[in-house]
Amino acid sequence: MTTSTQQATWRGFASDNYAGVHPEILDAIVRANAGHQVAYGDDDITSALNDAIKDHFGPVAEVFPVFNGTGANVVALQAMTRRWEAVVCAATAHVNVDEGGAPEHGAGLKLWTIPTPDGKLTPELIDTQAWGFGDVHRAQPGAVTITQSTELGTVYTVDEIRAITDHAHRLGMRVHLDGARLANAAVALGTDLRTFTTDAGVDAISFGGTKNGAMLSEAVVILDPVAAPGVDYLRKSSMQLASKMRFISAQLLALLTDDLWRRNATHANAMAHELASRVAAIPGVTIARPSQANAVFAILPADVTARLQERFRFYTWDQTTGEVRWMCSWDTTTEDVDAFAAAIAEEMSATH
Amino acid sequence: MTTSTQQATWRGFASDNYAGVHPEILDAIVRANAGHQVAYGDDDITSALNDAIKDHFGPVAEVFPVFNGTGANVVALQAMTRRWEAVVCAATAHVNVDEGGAPEHGAGLKLWTIPTPDGKLTPELIDTQAWGFGDVHRAQPGAVTITQSTELGTVYTVDEIRAITDHAHRLGMRVHLDGARLANAAVALGTDLRTFTTDAGVDAISFGGTKNGAMLSEAVVILDPVAAPGVDYLRKSSMQLASKMRFISAQLLALLTDDLWRRNATHANAMAHELASRVAAIPGVTIARPSQANAVFAILPADVTARLQERFRFYTWDQTTGEVRWMCSWDTTTEDVDAFAAAIAEEMSATH
Amino acid sequence: MTTSTQQATWRGFASDNYAGVHPEILDAIVRANAGHQVAYGDDDITSALNDAIKDHFGPVAEVFPVFNGTGANVVALQAMTRRWEAVVCAATAHVNVDEGGAPEHGAGLKLWTIPTPDGKLTPELIDTQAWGFGDVHRAQPGAVTITQSTELGTVYTVDEIRAITDHAHRLGMRVHLDGARLANAAVALGTDLRTFTTDAGVDAISFGGTKNGAMLSEAVVILDPVAAPGVDYLRKSSMQLASKMRFISAQLLALLTDDLWRRNATHANAMAHELASRVAAIPGVTIARPSQANAVFAILPADVTARLQERFRFYTWDQTTGEVRWMCSWDTTTEDVDAFAAAIAEEMSATH
Amino acid sequence: MTTSTQQATWRGFASDNYAGVHPEILDAIVRANAGHQVAYGDDDITSALNDAIKDHFGPVAEVFPVFNGTGANVVALQAMTRRWEAVVCAATAHVNVDEGGAPEHGAGLKLWTIPTPDGKLTPELIDTQAWGFGDVHRAQPGAVTITQSTELGTVYTVDEIRAITDHAHRLGMRVHLDGARLANAAVALGTDLRTFTTDAGVDAISFGGTKNGAMLSEAVVILDPVAAPGVDYLRKSSMQLASKMRFISAQLLALLTDDLWRRNATHANAMAHELASRVAAIPGVTIARPSQANAVFAILPADVTARLQERFRFYTWDQTTGEVRWMCSWDTTTEDVDAFAAAIAEEMSATH
Repeated sequence: MTTSTQQATWRGFASDNYAGVHPEILDAIVRANAGHQVAYGDDDITSALNDAIKDHFGPVAEVFPVFNGTGANVVALQAMTRRWEAVVCAATAHVNVDEGGAPEHGAGLKLWTIPTPDGKLTPELIDTQAWGFGDVHRAQPGAVTITQSTELGTVYTVDEIRAITDHAHRLGMRVHLDGARLANAAVALGTDLRTFTTDAGVDAISFGGTKNGAMLSEAVVILDPVAAPGVDYLRKSSMQLASKMRFISAQLLALLTDDLWRRNATHANAMAHELASRVAAIPGVTIARPSQANAVFAILPADVTARLQERFRFYTWDQTTGEVRWMCSWDTTTEDVDAFAAAIAEEMSATH
Repeated sequence: MTTSTQQATWRGFASDNYAGVHPEILDAIVRANAGHQVAYGDDDITSALNDAIKDHFGPVAEVFPVFNGTGANVVALQAMTRRWEAVVCAATAHVNVDEGGAPEHGAGLKLWTIPTPDGKLTPELIDTQAWGFGDVHRAQPGAVTITQSTELGTVYTVDEIRAITDHAHRLGMRVHLDGARLANAAVALGTDLRTFTTDAGVDAISFGGTKNGAMLSEAVVILDPVAAPGVDYLRKSSMQLASKMRFISAQLLALLTDDLWRRNATHANAMAHELASRVAAIPGVTIARPSQANAVFAILPADVTARLQERFRFYTWDQTTGEVRWMCSWDTTTEDVDAFAAAIAEEMSATH
Repeated sequence: MTTSTQQATWRGFASDNYAGVHPEILDAIVRANAGHQVAYGDDDITSALNDAIKDHFGPVAEVFPVFNGTGANVVALQAMTRRWEAVVCAATAHVNVDEGGAPEHGAGLKLWTIPTPDGKLTPELIDTQAWGFGDVHRAQPGAVTITQSTELGTVYTVDEIRAITDHAHRLGMRVHLDGARLANAAVALGTDLRTFTTDAGVDAISFGGTKNGAMLSEAVVILDPVAAPGVDYLRKSSMQLASKMRFISAQLLALLTDDLWRRNATHANAMAHELASRVAAIPGVTIARPSQANAVFAILPADVTARLQERFRFYTWDQTTGEVRWMCSWDTTTEDVDAFAAAIAEEMSATH
Repeated sequence: MTTSTQQATWRGFASDNYAGVHPEILDAIVRANAGHQVAYGDDDITSALNDAIKDHFGPVAEVFPVFNGTGANVVALQAMTRRWEAVVCAATAHVNVDEGGAPEHGAGLKLWTIPTPDGKLTPELIDTQAWGFGDVHRAQPGAVTITQSTELGTVYTVDEIRAITDHAHRLGMRVHLDGARLANAAVALGTDLRTFTTDAGVDAISFGGTKNGAMLSEAVVILDPVAAPGVDYLRKSSMQLASKMRFISAQLLALLTDDLWRRNATHANAMAHELASRVAAIPGVTIARPSQANAVFAILPADVTARLQERFRFYTWDQTTGEVRWMCSWDTTTEDVDAFAAAIAEEMSATH
């Protein structure tokens, strides 16, 4: 097995999961490999992680490490809904567009989807689908899921989240927060992790580590156990229970140690802001959305995108508008940004 | 985070997944952490793994790394059955008794279960459930799944597997092999990996790495693509697609490098045989089943079990008979066996 | 469209659902066809049915008419289990062997099946599967379902049911009773309908009308609403909600009017007893099981069965033992029994 | 049981399933009650129905009677998709908004929903969701379902359907048509039933009888068996298999006899046109959509709607615009229309 040198030094902007593992996390994995441990989460490291989670999210919080973000979302949403309930989400939500139908296929969950301008729900938008309570013909709205930071790189304020949880709770619904990029949102807001989750009334979250420098580590974190029972069983029946769980827990624990979660996210966000400001200065390029976390959305002429994609890997977000997405990660460097911005400028000037 | 010294040196016989990660595998993980790689399996290491899988299982074989054994089984069995088909298995099969209902819950799969004396199916046993073809009232038997080595520590011969695949194929059914302990079986049989899988007519397998020294690494390996279409989609919709897949692939690749899979399994099996022969010599203890792979099943007086379980962690397999299970792993030492056998002898002699 | 005269006068013993509709029920259907009624159960007749159900099962009972027995079972069992719970049943239960995998396929329900000598569970038998509470690897036993009268023609006594409900409730489980032939059981026991259901601690039943003279009419009857929430929603999401429900409700209401349920079942049971006693007298024929309701199970030589099946349609129950099943219905006549018994005697004497 | 006289003469405009059963269909049910018949569809009447279906839809057509429209849709769509495929539909489709989540809950089907101006899809609209083929993150578009006549009372032309089937087939997708009001559409188009189904390239339909004068009778009709395998099994595993099927088949057969399907739909459509033209003449009332089948959509002031709903039962379709829906049925009379139009005029004039 060889990893090509070209790959080892190459860093693109396609996704924050193209990056590798942060050295502190890799070190934690190596250190976790000490002798035998009881399997399936009854180990020292998972226990230490649960303590750390309580430190960050409050004493009621319980952590359930899982394999990936799709798993975290589907386990949490099952726990938060009864068999006949559905989930309200933005049309752009990862659960709707990027999980291969896992919520429906693996858990029978109907999604009531809502178009949004910026990936963010509001009480008013939620009301466009959260109705028909008591009508058996309508899959009963049981939970709302929001993504923070969103799939469009935007960030909910604390007040916006509080407005949603208040509204949903008044309707008898639970609130889930997909935090695949939770750290990036906290950094964008300048808060700790609990201010816009536990303290803002969120009932359960998917807490992502992988996009923030981990190898493979996500967790369901239950903030209100009454709102989300049975997670331990659902994790197993949803194929998300790791036998050697200590190695997953060690990664999240490393992220919560010495503020690594914040250091990584601060860096990725800063690189995105840098990239956005550099690109905004290139004539003819439009920054499509405010770059609040670690994503940059820009609109390019189609031929420029085509030529750029021969040099760098990234995704076209909307074929019709020419919008493309660039993600920064914990290991993006200023040199990467320089080189990429220069390439964009170069291809733009090659277009008439 | 600290791992207690006690844990670091402690090795029990409860399960082969209490063990840690083999150094060569950990090293492969560390080496995989070189720069960016395309996510979701389009990386160099997964590509190299696919080549290695073809070397071991034949040119048609395709590998789909997943997170855990339950995931591998449920993904493979979905690919091998149409929406209205069911799966025939031994009553003791892991898919039936130890997966929290994942096949039914996550994939709608009905299991037709069959009592067996030793965890092994035969054509005759399969016929007790593989009937009613064309009868709409009967969930149609679409696939058979067998476990090798079995949950009871027994091993199918090559001829026994061939008899099952011939029989199942004649009935129009597909054959899946749950190889959570595939390496242990190969060692027990003294063969390579393909002799009792591809060459014996098996259509798809779950190939386990975790119990054989990996950290978290399993795969669906398709041996007949016609018999199991859509695995790439089903892996995603079943929440088994890793973003940073290279780190999962690196583990299986390390196992297939320099015969590590065989070295680890040879050691674990040898330790089990040693333990079995040591324990068989203790008056009053009965070895319940032939110890063909890395498991030992013994029958102890209940009070002896109770006292032993205060000193060592292990599972009672059958409360009514007093049968207990001990598993050996890649890192079990002769000293571990010595100490454990001595403890059993000690507790036995303390009983009158 | 013509119905052949041969069919119109032909009555066999294959199944109680080969029979047509009792005239009083057909008349109720015709009378229900009076003008418009609100759809989906908010009609006068369904309201009257609910009153009648309370009269028969107690004031807490609530009725939810559905289309067929499979639907009733699957709706009830979903209501009685949380997403991660499984159902304990006899291996011979209709939900296990005759519903095409509907519980697993349509509701993700795992069945823990138990071999029984006579189709009846006991607390001791239930204990062979109702264990592992709190163990995430084991699909949690959440409900027990028993069938009354059973698929093998046997009938639970009131005390036997009470022992099961007491035991299950102590374990935190709910108890469902599949009453596709509830009326036949009540007649066999010489009781009303509530003595062995509501009063014996059963939490919910599937109440069958179709096999007892209705055209197409079954219902979920909830006896403990706390034990089985959400039936109204689950009925819809399980495709069991009729728009013109009055026509289904009218049938069950007719059965509960002027004791028609009892008259029909009394007749069917009596015909089965007559058939059993007539057949028992034929040399060489063995009555395989006590004929407690409207089924007769007998053991015949294979060649006799083959010749008889050319003359009459009926099912072989167990190929290996030669056991066959004959069902009597509300319209079976003494002449039918005479003719069939004579045919059996004739074919037996043609065998040497 | 008594049906109140008020109900017997009362006919509203809330839904075409508030109506009762047409006398010719009721008579067919009564005539079907002649002696024993083999259960589960192996009876004379179902056989005759299959012949009639072939007469109307072509020789390849196969009929599978089921209980209700939700059942027909969910069975057909399962047959038309593999485990990992999704269904493209209008956002207003019955499968999306009015089936309690049955497609997702009971069959794991993800729906890709599309906003439309009038309930009708087009190739261009389909393209907004039918993309991402081969991308494992996107639930693969496997089938399109269209409703004819639509939930908004509009009707696809034959050419519009042909454009959809051509487009879908080019994309490798199958086309299902939800024909809960198929007869009303045929009448609106002035065609027979096959011109806009079989001959327009549709692969399978849900053929509705209940809304057109039947008691409880719908069917999956497969027009291309290759596109929709396994319907017989899926009908059972989806709880849609009737034991005494002859009584369901008799209803559809009666509809196909002596053109009853056309007579009933012609009448219902005519009544809707009459109502629409009468209401259009009332100052201040807007007819919201062309009334092409048996539905009328109108916009009324909220207070008028409120007062009218105290006198007549009907549904508000869109709270924000004040749009209401009125359905006509096979038994709507000119007097009903007169009385209702007069009431609307009266309430409108009571508003200033």
